[in-house]
Amino acid sequence: MTDEDADRIYHVDGELVPAGEATVSVDDRGFRYGDAAFETLRAYGGTLFEWDAHVDRLEQTCEALSLEHGLDEDDLRSRIAETLDANGLEDAYVRLSITRGVQPGKLTPRSEVEPTVVIYVSPLPRGGLEGESVWAEPATVQTVETRRMPDESVPAAAKTHNYLNGILARAELRENDQPSDADEALMSDLEGHVAEGATSNLFFVRDGAVHTPTTDGSVLPGITRAIVLELAAEAGIPVREDRYVLADVLEADEAFLTNRTWELRPVASVNGRDIGGGPITDRLTRLYDERVETACYE
Amino acid sequence: MTDEDADRIYHVDGELVPAGEATVSVDDRGFRYGDAAFETLRAYGGTLFEWDAHVDRLEQTCEALSLEHGLDEDDLRSRIAETLDANGLEDAYVRLSITRGVQPGKLTPRSEVEPTVVIYVSPLPRGGLEGESVWAEPATVQTVETRRMPDESVPAAAKTHNYLNGILARAELRENDQPSDADEALMSDLEGHVAEGATSNLFFVRDGAVHTPTTDGSVLPGITRAIVLELAAEAGIPVREDRYVLADVLEADEAFLTNRTWELRPVASVNGRDIGGGPITDRLTRLYDERVETACYE
Repeated sequence: MTDEDADRIYHVDGELVPAGEATVSVDDRGFRYGDAAFETLRAYGGTLFEWDAHVDRLEQTCEALSLEHGLDEDDLRSRIAETLDANGLEDAYVRLSITRGVQPGKLTPRSEVEPTVVIYVSPLPRGGLEGESVWAEPATVQTVETRRMPDESVPAAAKTHNYLNGILARAELRENDQPSDADEALMSDLEGHVAEGATSNLFFVRDGAVHTPTTDGSVLPGITRAIVLELAAEAGIPVREDRYVLADVLEADEAFLTNRTWELRPVASVNGRDIGGGPITDRLTRLYDERVETACYE
Repeated sequence: MTDEDADRIYHVDGELVPAGEATVSVDDRGFRYGDAAFETLRAYGGTLFEWDAHVDRLEQTCEALSLEHGLDEDDLRSRIAETLDANGLEDAYVRLSITRGVQPGKLTPRSEVEPTVVIYVSPLPRGGLEGESVWAEPATVQTVETRRMPDESVPAAAKTHNYLNGILARAELRENDQPSDADEALMSDLEGHVAEGATSNLFFVRDGAVHTPTTDGSVLPGITRAIVLELAAEAGIPVREDRYVLADVLEADEAFLTNRTWELRPVASVNGRDIGGGPITDRLTRLYDERVETACYE
């Protein structure tokens, strides 16, 4: 933890606590097994962007895990607001984690849950039309051997503390004989179709159309991803969700990654092949910024 | 946590602490991502059974995770001994967890690690020839839809805090329209071959030979599994590690599960079909008990 982090205030089980003292029991199932759901959000000017979509996905994750936490969304929302307040933050990264809490010895989960709720925040720049990017440079992307976890093993739509699949993908970037300077690892699914980055969804543009791997496979249905698809459709840009191989991406005219924090981030290159952003990436970025501006700063 | 657990002493980062006060930072990667290795061991009469095998597998897990914890095995062993001592335990369950600790914000792991080491203990009955079983009844096994995580997504040989795959399998047992009274969930791999239980390896006996799914797939190389294979070979019982379908198991003359805690546990039934233990299961159990007796109580 950096000194900066240590000055921050987190929210753990209903209490505001200095980040340096924020802990969970070693018997918490979130720690023992990664048995927990999470969401990554952004607050822009004090407003949680797309709160309803996050609540929906959180519910989807908890349903996949049979985790009945019993907390209502207003409660969760006010805990986040308290945390932002305590840190004096209006523009921020927010992580909300809900674990299955401590249960007696067995692996089999019990239905009666006393969940552990943790809220992390950290400062981010302003977003929207007058905002600045969280990332300094476009993304450098490298494909890896690690395959995206199949839906049949852990549901792809569930956002959980079982994040080793993405960590192993990222770790590969620096393990090769010639460590890569890539900052995102692109995983394929077990059938060899391009799936997603370790923490991002992939988009590419060919012949004026926007393409992205379908979530009808091993791909997390990112909320930023959904908004970009919506914005493209509204703007009359053809969109296609399908199964793609790497060659489709390498031949693209433009490519970008999306996630909550990065928003839209152009892809400089994939496996050393230059791709870059372009007019459609720029247009969608502008539309996204407008949406954030309208929803949060007006 | 039960009151009994709260009286216990754990070992966290070099300190003995009451279980009820044993915590890790919410920023620990073990909590945020399940980015941690673990081993489940048994102490019999104060001796850690098969310590070397556990050290080897722990190393294998850490290598798979590129987790260079920098702790030597004598250090780990003496922490475990201290914990057993502090709890006045000689016959015990021991869980050793090593996480990648707290690292600054990014998902990509850093190579410089300040690991978090947690040792959990709880009492178990005596083992060996005069011992008693941890389990009260033979296992009732039910197959589930959740597929064992493929090796290509997270190495099957790695024993990590990413345990949702097994939790989802167990959760299925009580979610069906007619909740099952099964106490172990049997997973197949993505190709439909029988893989393993949520916390156990599967063995079955047909025509006098012992069969078990090969670890050349999505199966954890259990240490108890390896010992049973060794004992069978020494006793001249034919052994075969292969790929099997459910029908092979259902037609078996005997079946049993293995894990560190259960040792060998006969399978009463699979999907309601009676199987049970039998002479070969009994013989291997006796040989296992002899091995524990010799290694730990003599």
